[in-house]
Amino acid sequence: MQIIFLFYDGMTALDAIGPHEILCRLPGAKVHRVAKKIGAIHTDSDLLLHADSTLADVSHADILLIPGAGNATTLRDYPETLDWIKTIHQTTTWTTSVCTGSLILGAAGVLKGLKATSHWAALERLQTWGAKPVESRIVESGKIITAAGVSAGIDMALALAAKIAGQRIAETLQLGIEYDPVPLFNAGSPAKANPDILKALHAYMNAAFEKP
Amino acid sequence: MQIIFLFYDGMTALDAIGPHEILCRLPGAKVHRVAKKIGAIHTDSDLLLHADSTLADVSHADILLIPGAGNATTLRDYPETLDWIKTIHQTTTWTTSVCTGSLILGAAGVLKGLKATSHWAALERLQTWGAKPVESRIVESGKIITAAGVSAGIDMALALAAKIAGQRIAETLQLGIEYDPVPLFNAGSPAKANPDILKALHAYMNAAFEKP
Repeated sequence: MQIIFLFYDGMTALDAIGPHEILCRLPGAKVHRVAKKIGAIHTDSDLLLHADSTLADVSHADILLIPGAGNATTLRDYPETLDWIKTIHQTTTWTTSVCTGSLILGAAGVLKGLKATSHWAALERLQTWGAKPVESRIVESGKIITAAGVSAGIDMALALAAKIAGQRIAETLQLGIEYDPVPLFNAGSPAKANPDILKALHAYMNAAFEKP
Repeated sequence: MQIIFLFYDGMTALDAIGPHEILCRLPGAKVHRVAKKIGAIHTDSDLLLHADSTLADVSHADILLIPGAGNATTLRDYPETLDWIKTIHQTTTWTTSVCTGSLILGAAGVLKGLKATSHWAALERLQTWGAKPVESRIVESGKIITAAGVSAGIDMALALAAKIAGQRIAETLQLGIEYDPVPLFNAGSPAKANPDILKALHAYMNAAFEKP
């Protein structure tokens, strides 16, 4: 089972590493971290990740995962990457995204007419690509699964693990990473957040986002 | 505010990257990812991370974070790293660990007589180092905060963010990573897991662990 993570400069590390920690432990998983070039990838938190394969090295995927980025890029300056996503998508069993990775799927042309989610601050931008934004932590549209912001990738990966390998293995993976979350505050979604904090963070993030 | 993540070969990526995604966004944060050598770090999921500083480059930390490893290493083969931890610990405001990183803190000699937690499968091993194992997601003993397995680092980092920067900033960081977890199954701790799964995973993990 070939599991492909797209890596690119500016990506958010946890968008990929949360799901990676789960999906790489699926029975039969062969994982590749793919980018335009092999080598260091500069994430949006200054942490460096490492791509081990180039786009040209990969011609199919059973699972494709596209992480998001702090600037909500659609990768529009990298049409060859978008073309690659569209091509690989034709070969996948599951095409997935975390956070604003769904905007990249949109720009690659694979979300037209489909329900999808994204980071809450970027959700409406899905309409640019003909997708139907849904305020939900995980949205499944056929073989495409999109997850909400950053940490939602962990929930998405466990749900995907259950689909692929069954509940017993998904629960084993969950117990392995001791995923029994107890957030100190009940403030992790727009519906639950303090309205002042929500407004301020939305303005801050929008200012950092790529122009629509 | 100097935030130091210890990186080492065999570490679990998510142990570090979960907290990193939060702590690096604290106001005034200067983050360094420190290892014996600058360069690629092989995690236990084959993913490569990158250390940007050596142990010798770092002589103090406001926050020190030690991640765990799939083989529950105490780093006993690297006494210079344990000495470094002990020295840096004397300079910290907060010394923290995620998962079996607490065994490393124990081996460095800083947990004697203190309550601490770890990954559930390694919890009793804390006694080797004179620590008192506590079945809890986060354990605070003076300036030392230990977190349970892997994903518990996210909860720990948010709690630490609140201590350092206040509830408003912690809630902002939580909303930023949309941390509103909804695990598909209620199976992420030993108390909640299917007993058969717990037993099988415990045996599997123990076999992979470093000899006590």
